[in-house]
Amino acid sequence: MTPTLQIIREAHARIMPHIHRTPVLSSSILNAQVGAELIFKCENFQKVGAFKARGACNAVMSLTDEQARRGVVTHSSGNHGAALAWAARLRGIKATVVVPDNAPAPKKRAIAAYGADIVFCAPNVVAREAAVAALIEKYGYFLIHPFDNDQVIAGQGTATLELLEKRPDLDMVISPLGGGGLLSGTSIAAKGIKPSIKVFGAEPRGADDGYRSFTTGVRVTEQTPETICDGLRTTLSERTFNNIRANVDGIGVASEENVIKAMRLMWELLKIIVESSCSPPLGAILEGNIDVKGKRVGIILTGGNVDLDKLPWQS
Amino acid sequence: MTPTLQIIREAHARIMPHIHRTPVLSSSILNAQVGAELIFKCENFQKVGAFKARGACNAVMSLTDEQARRGVVTHSSGNHGAALAWAARLRGIKATVVVPDNAPAPKKRAIAAYGADIVFCAPNVVAREAAVAALIEKYGYFLIHPFDNDQVIAGQGTATLELLEKRPDLDMVISPLGGGGLLSGTSIAAKGIKPSIKVFGAEPRGADDGYRSFTTGVRVTEQTPETICDGLRTTLSERTFNNIRANVDGIGVASEENVIKAMRLMWELLKIIVESSCSPPLGAILEGNIDVKGKRVGIILTGGNVDLDKLPWQS
Repeated sequence: MTPTLQIIREAHARIMPHIHRTPVLSSSILNAQVGAELIFKCENFQKVGAFKARGACNAVMSLTDEQARRGVVTHSSGNHGAALAWAARLRGIKATVVVPDNAPAPKKRAIAAYGADIVFCAPNVVAREAAVAALIEKYGYFLIHPFDNDQVIAGQGTATLELLEKRPDLDMVISPLGGGGLLSGTSIAAKGIKPSIKVFGAEPRGADDGYRSFTTGVRVTEQTPETICDGLRTTLSERTFNNIRANVDGIGVASEENVIKAMRLMWELLKIIVESSCSPPLGAILEGNIDVKGKRVGIILTGGNVDLDKLPWQS
Repeated sequence: MTPTLQIIREAHARIMPHIHRTPVLSSSILNAQVGAELIFKCENFQKVGAFKARGACNAVMSLTDEQARRGVVTHSSGNHGAALAWAARLRGIKATVVVPDNAPAPKKRAIAAYGADIVFCAPNVVAREAAVAALIEKYGYFLIHPFDNDQVIAGQGTATLELLEKRPDLDMVISPLGGGGLLSGTSIAAKGIKPSIKVFGAEPRGADDGYRSFTTGVRVTEQTPETICDGLRTTLSERTFNNIRANVDGIGVASEENVIKAMRLMWELLKIIVESSCSPPLGAILEGNIDVKGKRVGIILTGGNVDLDKLPWQS
């Protein structure tokens, strides 16, 4: 069932004992530079270093005992996999994660550290889904999809509840767009609380299926992503596309250059570690593709799991 | 006059309209690793990216109108210089900063960005003080010393007021030790609020004048520092040495290797940008030189102004 504001509030109550209520940060220098007030919701400080802890926790804690006993499985480039491993351990059940073999090393290590089994696959959607299907067929695991799952979407929306509780005066919220789980939850929560608020997604130009789907009204189901944003390479599902069409006001895209520039600006001015996959919202603002002039703008910073030996401005 | 808890409280009231009340962060993974609860006071998120904003602001806002009209001068490897430039601009007065020519590039840029005049000098205490004396002689500027100044010390102590207000249950507080201004303010505030609390300083082994002064009782006044901690290369003054002898329980040292390891651990686990000069407290814990087992330990993270093109684990 498509999540509502009420369902997102119930998810929040369910996961609150387990997650961090993350802080928001701002930079007066950055605000002066873009001519707006940017309020960053720091999910890089969340459990497992990413907002994905919210959705995975809500989904795992919503399982019936019978479902939980089967163990859970997912495919993930990293953060959802670590989040599912963490949530499964909280509940005391087994987790298996299918990981594309080009996922960043620290993300692979995190999945293993939280005690999940890892199965590697080729880095594309077809290979991921085939590997998951084979595991379900063989072992009977319960699938917790990284974004095409209503409990996961409701969990991701809880970050926006906290953001708007802290800053009810926001004019706009922007979140990165990959498979669309976060943007679905963000937009349902934001419009539910404040119908006048504007909600935007942002993605790298090298994986702009969301932008193309949104502007043409026809869902793009295949792409060959070319972006360093490893968390944003997936395409929308029917479910997330419908949520986004119903609730989102626009999608902004950013070049790789502006993604990297935005990432570095946040490191320098906010003094925080954020992933490249966090950076399209600020990147799209810098590129002039989302107009924020004079507005109060919430931005969901999705995660901080970075390979510190391979920084994008040094390659 | 040596600051007291009451004077530090007055300083806090004076600077509160201008500074950030910075958050505290923890990592359950790091806590498990060291066997203690570490609570990090994030002054890397402070105005100008460092706790130095507190002391400089208190000193500048405490000037009489006649003193203020003369303009202010200081010497600084970076953060105090930027802080004084920022505070002087708040008050609408002129600032001049003597900077050692090997200071990190982003710190030099920040001083200029806040509108101060920069005068370069050789990177040693004698050259710094000679350059400042010449400027005072010529222009009549009012000196705001980076640490040998009671208003500066009182301002630095305000971080500990906020830390202990948030976490009155702390058993111990540790701050980095350079010239001793922060450790003076930290120890006066901490012991004033909670006489049973333990207060430690921490410094890199390559600039361990504080450790040697503290353990022998004779102040070391000259050293040739060999450390990447650019904020901790100075020696104690008579004033800060007396404060530290009166209020501090011990000084821990850390090797360069453990400083860098600690810095990287904080980046990876706390997801924050902190300077090398922040890292001796955790470095000394990792090295076994400050015993924190089973304790609740506050650590002042002093700043986040890092050259992102030159990370210490990559050189």
